[in-house]
Amino acid sequence: MGWTTIGSRLAYENPWIRVREDQVLRPDGSAGRYGVVEVRAPAVFVVPISDDDDVVLVSVDRYATGESSLEVPAGGAEESDLQLAAERELCEETGLVARHWRDLGRVQSLNGVAAAAGRVFLARGLREAARTAQPVDHQGIEGIDAVVRVPLDRLPDLLAAGGITDNESLGALLLALTALGRVR
Amino acid sequence: MGWTTIGSRLAYENPWIRVREDQVLRPDGSAGRYGVVEVRAPAVFVVPISDDDDVVLVSVDRYATGESSLEVPAGGAEESDLQLAAERELCEETGLVARHWRDLGRVQSLNGVAAAAGRVFLARGLREAARTAQPVDHQGIEGIDAVVRVPLDRLPDLLAAGGITDNESLGALLLALTALGRVR
Repeated sequence: MGWTTIGSRLAYENPWIRVREDQVLRPDGSAGRYGVVEVRAPAVFVVPISDDDDVVLVSVDRYATGESSLEVPAGGAEESDLQLAAERELCEETGLVARHWRDLGRVQSLNGVAAAAGRVFLARGLREAARTAQPVDHQGIEGIDAVVRVPLDRLPDLLAAGGITDNESLGALLLALTALGRVR
Repeated sequence: MGWTTIGSRLAYENPWIRVREDQVLRPDGSAGRYGVVEVRAPAVFVVPISDDDDVVLVSVDRYATGESSLEVPAGGAEESDLQLAAERELCEETGLVARHWRDLGRVQSLNGVAAAAGRVFLARGLREAARTAQPVDHQGIEGIDAVVRVPLDRLPDLLAAGGITDNESLGALLLALTALGRVR
């Protein structure tokens, strides 16, 4: 690292993020300050592909941007096992479970400002989860208003039309499409 | 929007970001608080493709994550014209100018926490910029330690090997590869 940390103070925290302000020396030696947003829980991103090659997306009402956004199922990991977290998020957000899981690697979001680590999973062999007696309304709590299936063959048109703007979803989809041999 | 804002306070700000904490009602009606990181300047992301189908990437020493990261040229827009900002960032970070520019649309980063808008551009017809008499060391200030050309044909292997973890770069690359007809 070409950066040096001279000092650090906590600027803000809540259960999900922590913001600190560091006094730094930049790679060129000049002094400055750097506000870093630490996202406490690693995120998991799931690209669920059905047996007939649909990708399953969710429409999320995003408070921070004030927009509804078409995204891959995702969320913060409460579990140390990230695949378990991915399995939980997939089920909570879409009602699906997957037989086959593949770890597509780690990602970082908004790394000019944030330390926000994530892990991407490809999920195949989808089926509906068994219903629980008293389901928790995770979709309502998180602002998910629809589950949308998009045939993979139509995904390029959707992307070209600006139908997916969430960078984490775009990143997860690129890794998944690469793993599926659909990128050349 | 299914969310309602009840109150808001400024929690932290610096020249680049502003963090506010809002009191909210969630889409299911329950009360909570939401820390929102507003990134002040929109970001521009440039996917530069050479005449012989190399994508030009930069290796950036990222303070927030403590890692070196292979990324598309990018930065915060000081200009209201985002293409001008993209042209400036491309030149500052790689020493290149481009003859052909294509706006690939807008993106949002880390939208569970942040309001961080961006715009992606495809840049083609690359050539070296004329040298200025007293160049500013933008690469040193921003922590860029290398410019790397990757043949597009080898990009899938690089992605599969985890060579690019920056979600904004992955998102920009997916939009660019789609525009180039390389995603099916």
